[in-house]
Amino acid sequence: MAMMTGEQYVESLRKLKLNVYMFGKKIENVVDNPIIRPSMNSVKMTYDLAEKPEYEELMTTVSNITGEKINRFTNIHQSTEDLVKKVKMQRLCGQKTAACFQRCVGMDAFNAEYSTTFEIDKEYGTNYHERFKKFMAYVQENDLTVDGAMTDPKGDRALSPAKQADPDLYLHIVERREDGIVVRGAKSHQTGITNSHEVLVMPTVAMRPEDKDYAVSFAVPTDSQGITIIMGRQSCDTRKSEEGADIDVGNFNYGGHEALVVFDNVFVPNDRIFLNGETEFAGMLVERFAGYHRQSYGGCKVGVGDVLIGATALAADYNGAHKVSHIKDKLIEMTHLNETLYACGIACSAEGHKTESGNYLINLLLANVCKQNVTRFPYEIARLAEDIAGGLMVTMPSEKDFRSEEVGHYIEKYLKGVASVSTENRMRILRLIENITLGTAAVGYRTESMHGAGSPQAQRIMISRQSNLAHKKALAKAIARIKE
Amino acid sequence: MAMMTGEQYVESLRKLKLNVYMFGKKIENVVDNPIIRPSMNSVKMTYDLAEKPEYEELMTTVSNITGEKINRFTNIHQSTEDLVKKVKMQRLCGQKTAACFQRCVGMDAFNAEYSTTFEIDKEYGTNYHERFKKFMAYVQENDLTVDGAMTDPKGDRALSPAKQADPDLYLHIVERREDGIVVRGAKSHQTGITNSHEVLVMPTVAMRPEDKDYAVSFAVPTDSQGITIIMGRQSCDTRKSEEGADIDVGNFNYGGHEALVVFDNVFVPNDRIFLNGETEFAGMLVERFAGYHRQSYGGCKVGVGDVLIGATALAADYNGAHKVSHIKDKLIEMTHLNETLYACGIACSAEGHKTESGNYLINLLLANVCKQNVTRFPYEIARLAEDIAGGLMVTMPSEKDFRSEEVGHYIEKYLKGVASVSTENRMRILRLIENITLGTAAVGYRTESMHGAGSPQAQRIMISRQSNLAHKKALAKAIARIKE
Amino acid sequence: MAMMTGEQYVESLRKLKLNVYMFGKKIENVVDNPIIRPSMNSVKMTYDLAEKPEYEELMTTVSNITGEKINRFTNIHQSTEDLVKKVKMQRLCGQKTAACFQRCVGMDAFNAEYSTTFEIDKEYGTNYHERFKKFMAYVQENDLTVDGAMTDPKGDRALSPAKQADPDLYLHIVERREDGIVVRGAKSHQTGITNSHEVLVMPTVAMRPEDKDYAVSFAVPTDSQGITIIMGRQSCDTRKSEEGADIDVGNFNYGGHEALVVFDNVFVPNDRIFLNGETEFAGMLVERFAGYHRQSYGGCKVGVGDVLIGATALAADYNGAHKVSHIKDKLIEMTHLNETLYACGIACSAEGHKTESGNYLINLLLANVCKQNVTRFPYEIARLAEDIAGGLMVTMPSEKDFRSEEVGHYIEKYLKGVASVSTENRMRILRLIENITLGTAAVGYRTESMHGAGSPQAQRIMISRQSNLAHKKALAKAIARIKE
Amino acid sequence: MAMMTGEQYVESLRKLKLNVYMFGKKIENVVDNPIIRPSMNSVKMTYDLAEKPEYEELMTTVSNITGEKINRFTNIHQSTEDLVKKVKMQRLCGQKTAACFQRCVGMDAFNAEYSTTFEIDKEYGTNYHERFKKFMAYVQENDLTVDGAMTDPKGDRALSPAKQADPDLYLHIVERREDGIVVRGAKSHQTGITNSHEVLVMPTVAMRPEDKDYAVSFAVPTDSQGITIIMGRQSCDTRKSEEGADIDVGNFNYGGHEALVVFDNVFVPNDRIFLNGETEFAGMLVERFAGYHRQSYGGCKVGVGDVLIGATALAADYNGAHKVSHIKDKLIEMTHLNETLYACGIACSAEGHKTESGNYLINLLLANVCKQNVTRFPYEIARLAEDIAGGLMVTMPSEKDFRSEEVGHYIEKYLKGVASVSTENRMRILRLIENITLGTAAVGYRTESMHGAGSPQAQRIMISRQSNLAHKKALAKAIARIKE
Repeated sequence: MAMMTGEQYVESLRKLKLNVYMFGKKIENVVDNPIIRPSMNSVKMTYDLAEKPEYEELMTTVSNITGEKINRFTNIHQSTEDLVKKVKMQRLCGQKTAACFQRCVGMDAFNAEYSTTFEIDKEYGTNYHERFKKFMAYVQENDLTVDGAMTDPKGDRALSPAKQADPDLYLHIVERREDGIVVRGAKSHQTGITNSHEVLVMPTVAMRPEDKDYAVSFAVPTDSQGITIIMGRQSCDTRKSEEGADIDVGNFNYGGHEALVVFDNVFVPNDRIFLNGETEFAGMLVERFAGYHRQSYGGCKVGVGDVLIGATALAADYNGAHKVSHIKDKLIEMTHLNETLYACGIACSAEGHKTESGNYLINLLLANVCKQNVTRFPYEIARLAEDIAGGLMVTMPSEKDFRSEEVGHYIEKYLKGVASVSTENRMRILRLIENITLGTAAVGYRTESMHGAGSPQAQRIMISRQSNLAHKKALAKAIARIKE
Repeated sequence: MAMMTGEQYVESLRKLKLNVYMFGKKIENVVDNPIIRPSMNSVKMTYDLAEKPEYEELMTTVSNITGEKINRFTNIHQSTEDLVKKVKMQRLCGQKTAACFQRCVGMDAFNAEYSTTFEIDKEYGTNYHERFKKFMAYVQENDLTVDGAMTDPKGDRALSPAKQADPDLYLHIVERREDGIVVRGAKSHQTGITNSHEVLVMPTVAMRPEDKDYAVSFAVPTDSQGITIIMGRQSCDTRKSEEGADIDVGNFNYGGHEALVVFDNVFVPNDRIFLNGETEFAGMLVERFAGYHRQSYGGCKVGVGDVLIGATALAADYNGAHKVSHIKDKLIEMTHLNETLYACGIACSAEGHKTESGNYLINLLLANVCKQNVTRFPYEIARLAEDIAGGLMVTMPSEKDFRSEEVGHYIEKYLKGVASVSTENRMRILRLIENITLGTAAVGYRTESMHGAGSPQAQRIMISRQSNLAHKKALAKAIARIKE
Repeated sequence: MAMMTGEQYVESLRKLKLNVYMFGKKIENVVDNPIIRPSMNSVKMTYDLAEKPEYEELMTTVSNITGEKINRFTNIHQSTEDLVKKVKMQRLCGQKTAACFQRCVGMDAFNAEYSTTFEIDKEYGTNYHERFKKFMAYVQENDLTVDGAMTDPKGDRALSPAKQADPDLYLHIVERREDGIVVRGAKSHQTGITNSHEVLVMPTVAMRPEDKDYAVSFAVPTDSQGITIIMGRQSCDTRKSEEGADIDVGNFNYGGHEALVVFDNVFVPNDRIFLNGETEFAGMLVERFAGYHRQSYGGCKVGVGDVLIGATALAADYNGAHKVSHIKDKLIEMTHLNETLYACGIACSAEGHKTESGNYLINLLLANVCKQNVTRFPYEIARLAEDIAGGLMVTMPSEKDFRSEEVGHYIEKYLKGVASVSTENRMRILRLIENITLGTAAVGYRTESMHGAGSPQAQRIMISRQSNLAHKKALAKAIARIKE
Repeated sequence: MAMMTGEQYVESLRKLKLNVYMFGKKIENVVDNPIIRPSMNSVKMTYDLAEKPEYEELMTTVSNITGEKINRFTNIHQSTEDLVKKVKMQRLCGQKTAACFQRCVGMDAFNAEYSTTFEIDKEYGTNYHERFKKFMAYVQENDLTVDGAMTDPKGDRALSPAKQADPDLYLHIVERREDGIVVRGAKSHQTGITNSHEVLVMPTVAMRPEDKDYAVSFAVPTDSQGITIIMGRQSCDTRKSEEGADIDVGNFNYGGHEALVVFDNVFVPNDRIFLNGETEFAGMLVERFAGYHRQSYGGCKVGVGDVLIGATALAADYNGAHKVSHIKDKLIEMTHLNETLYACGIACSAEGHKTESGNYLINLLLANVCKQNVTRFPYEIARLAEDIAGGLMVTMPSEKDFRSEEVGHYIEKYLKGVASVSTENRMRILRLIENITLGTAAVGYRTESMHGAGSPQAQRIMISRQSNLAHKKALAKAIARIKE
């Protein structure tokens, strides 16, 4: 099968029999649910853009497995150029959706699994790598969206997996059968799960020998028996389901979502198992997935940042304030911070290297530096956006008031900025800024920037490990002429 | 009449015939509206606390006009000690509501009007000061809540009031009658207007001679003929009106609100006019009101910060992460920043001075420095809170899922943190942090910190004016032994 | 005896027989040494200003011990007003010297000893408080400068005093005699020791029972038998002794210094001992001294900051760049940061309270917050100064080149800024900025801001202790409606 | 001729007859002057490293002009790989010298001239490009060090070149002859001029038609008739010439320098002129040179940062404080900031593109973002270094005291840190940190980071120009569904 069009993707989702709950009720039609739909549109964008000639080089490539043209979101990176293009593709998708388009998690999991399974096989003579390549061929041929699932609920952070009061707080194998395994547990913060065909599960931390049952990685369809998806609430989520919702939503077409995914005795057939008890490789898988995903944020968040900067510049224009020096300076600062993130995304890609399996891994130090900056700069960019937008962003009456016969004319009159711009357009831009800084998209632009791909401290630990302090000390001793 | 109890305050509001719109509909019962009610509860707290002996010294004082015991929110400050107590009262109210309790705007307007009317009278022989004192006596005797209304819609920021395409974009006098004036225009961002008995209107910028009709200040009841209130939307506002809403609201009891208030040919009787065309005093009124209000933020936002720090510390406890060194360090940083704001609030108060009218004005330089820090530190405190809270804050399923028979048990099981704390309590704390950083209270803790009492650049201009650079240059020349 | 004049102070120093080394040689005439002299001039300023009527209220007060008029630097603070005036006096002295005037350390030690000795006596029935008051009377009557000596060399930071390889790395009692004690050890970073009549020694950390010999506090003349002073090097120190030095020094008249002071079997008579083995009070003494000294930095560094801001504004003027918007904005930022420090200094003073002994202690939380900011903002102020000053500050030829017949005319010609200002004056201002940001005064404005009165982490520990997190958690639980 | 060895380089400098002044005197032996020598050693490092096989790939390449192996410092970049290697070479040199090695300025000027002369020729039919290639061949064949000279004194910043009171405040042509031109003026902040064989002069700003005589670029030997070099003072410069100087210098072997270079009627032959009145190309030359040089700082300053981080880690080790969590965290932060700079250096290189002339230009937006971060992060890295180093760094007695018979033993005893490290080594490391943060190297690590390659505002202007705000606005309009 060739790559799917956006429409084919939507139709493919309709065939899934997902078990999804939101606001205490099971959702019968997931695809058309007004709160979920915008998040699906964001994933759909990854299919739509791949069809456009102007983005072909960024959005598509040729599979190293099948030799066929594929969507880059299913690519096993073959060069540093591939790594750089990945970041550029993510920036593009962020620009087009101003939201999380969700398909990166799978892509990053693919590449982490690809090299790690190779190294496990080398050590243990297992055949995970071939299994995984077969799975990848299936993904590429069908142009699937796959949810990469890493984060377990974790319970008490002071205790290891095997020490938790409830053994299920980390996903684990509860039964080993001849034809496969049965797993139980849950994965938190699952981005895009309802828009995915498959879920690719990985362990969430480095493991110790006693955590054998927890060192497990596999892929299953998202509508497998035993999987329950409970949607997470987002700030302002219900604006999307308000009658006549448009302006107030801020970003009408696109969004993101996260969910708690429960695995209640889910069966995994052997050919879909990629790690099974080799505890010492859990850490490698986590580190590589996290590394790729930390690189990703140097693309996608930058794209959202581009939209926020543009919206903020428009808000200033609509206010008549665009020539004021402090406004111009703040826009420069927003750009500077946003491009610093991009520079980090590019640098960790350009400095990538080949793994034993043949695919390319980013520079881990720089990828962690990238993500660490992502935990800071979007917050400052958002703060500056809120500064320029003005208080009206959060004191503006509702769209329904604007449309009302009784008071709509007051809003039309008094919320007017410069004479040449309609009040409605001014409202639209302010609602977009609200959406990114405080609303549904703030979950992606702020909290996900903070915690996605690992919380800030996780990056600091990696930076410390990768910093080669011994070499730096030797340099200093040479300069200071210290003899020992 | 004595001071009102909280209950009496609520009853007094029921008597108002406010003309309020929200979501395109007129609200018949404002007091019991589920979205407005929490904001009213915040104001009610200023009455409730005044009844408690342990807070008597902070919450009450004796009127310099009537000699009676009054709520400090209606006080004309008589000393720097009064100014300091004002800040402490505000911190207390912030701690008890974790929201904007709205009554400060009136208090700050009272004190700005008090001294400015005195100085206008001195210059012009008008009798604004006596009129204003009479108004104050009425406010104090009836323990009223008054909305101080300053910010005009402003339209095109590059144009002065009289140059706007629509002359009503700044509130102005449209008719002068023997018994009073008629005004038209609007005031944006009116905090607490539906919970106020009176609205005290001030001009929003310094004026030039041609802006004579715009240089107007007065007080009228909030249910005056011609006043229409259109409520502003807040992030997550409708969670308050969801069926069974409790946990998901984050802060069930308290909140804030802002609104667009339209004055459509409102009549103001002579004895309620406090500025009428004396354009050169508009700037003084603005500067003093803004100064007092910038001081205020060194109290109220610090109180909200206390709650946020406490909630964040609890989130760490519930995660089992409270002994981790970087978590402890971040809590220290949050405290450090919060107390720096408080220090600024205290300092500008302790360094206050007596005006010609006899009341006390804060140190303007330090009050502006205070507010400038408020435009920065709450954002960083919120960022650190989001860091410690973890991603669950924005991916957690809804309260309805938690209460559902079908999936509630999954949430109970998988969202459990340390064994000793219930999942519900963990959810409650995370929703509170969400409320302050992304939800309804973020409007107060973030955007209001940024724009309330003037946007950041307004403080920078005042800091520049008050910085006495000439004196500093002279100091430098003396040290550098520069002779000219 | 009355207060000393500046000249009398200088003469009084001449009578001391200090044992001082610098650059490997004993200094015979300390007072007139070109490197030390400017630091003495800074202390002299505390005497000079006390003579001027316009500063009388700030610089002098009445002793609570003798009832006589005294220099405020020898005051036992009797009110929060006293605490506030202390900070203002320090800002003034900083403005007049652009350097460390050294006399605060003694003042802060006086007040810490005053209350601590009272509390020791209460516990143990000792008579340290009377001894100390007698010593204070002597200090006040003779208007002495006293070096407060706290910091021990400390050796291996991972080991407590009694566990060090060399027992002398913390100063301790080596012999107890009937008439007194003999001590050995050293005090590092002694600010102003060569300009002091007496040295008042305190322990440097909280002590445990086994550290009994290290829990010692006393005062002795600076020229006591067994004391050796070894001057510390400062950046650019020898510019002061270059032939014809003037412009290149940056600050010709004033400076600061620090030294290593060795106590090699120094005898202390009984009436000068204020702590002798009461280990549990060492911590109180350290905490109170540090608290007062952290308050101090909210005054003195702000005064130096005033000079730096003035010098930077002049550098912009001399460049013809003073109307450029980013320059103006940076000067505002410098002012904002500087005044934030001042606000903290004022606030911890205004919020002070009475100790059991009757003198006033600052608010410890806010004093630590003050100092914590001092470890950050002067660095940013300096960075902005370097930004505005331009690269010429560090690439400018020497004063000797400027005075040279051969190339002086080139410098005159090519280092000219705006036509109305002489090249010499431009050089003077740039050298002053260099002095504060990179030169001798950087030791005071940067490093001392960082480490004086305790390194940043010391303040964080105190902030943590004083933050009452339990109360904040209770506030959050009330808002979140958590029941346990 | 082949590439020079370090020794050959030194000998080649001895042959120059430079006219150099320092401290008011002409320097007869420049090469062996104790203050200048360390700066020469830094340049020598660029020759020494090129001889080492392990650095061959970084330090050398093949000339696109001569086809011979050359030192990369004389390379015309042929690919983005070349641009990346340039940055890595600079980081290496920074690590080996902890100072400014000066040779980058010429390299960056070469590449800017190469493409700009090509484009001038295309426009005007001039033959600057061939002339320049001939000059480059000479430079490459002789392995020369060339000073790129851009910054004019500029006088009154509010006036353009032709409007200055003194026409010489910008270097300009004073005579046009058949065989060449005569120029007059000066270049400020000339890094490494005394260690250079040639000086390559460029204009310092974009020019207008009336500035025709100022739009000039050329190369002449540094010892040309009419050139006078006046050395700039650096903080602590004279420590290098103190008798027995070693420890106190901090960095004994390496350093940097800057100087004022006066061109007093210097003749330039026609074949050395590369711009002569084509005013509209002055801006292109400035922008490209600045762009390359802003890239450079993402390498060299990172290398110095590596040494500073290593030295700081050693200071912590020597203190016994290396296991303390806040110390470890600060080292991570230093590394994070340093690597962020590196990421920017790499990214602007990897994103470079081919110019019309065939050489490669960095991505201008990212290069400016790189430098903008360099104006901030080294200051914070230095602040953290000063935090960890402790106050002893600036209160430590001199090396002469340490060597003295009388007091040396006291220093040996009391400045001891952990038992296993000698006091001397502890002193050496602290002096190295002082050198970089406050001493001679602070001129390079701080001020040059701020102002080298253009002051911060210059980058902000370029970021603004390159930010394509119109595109970002279009993105935001699409998301907000704004129709116009």
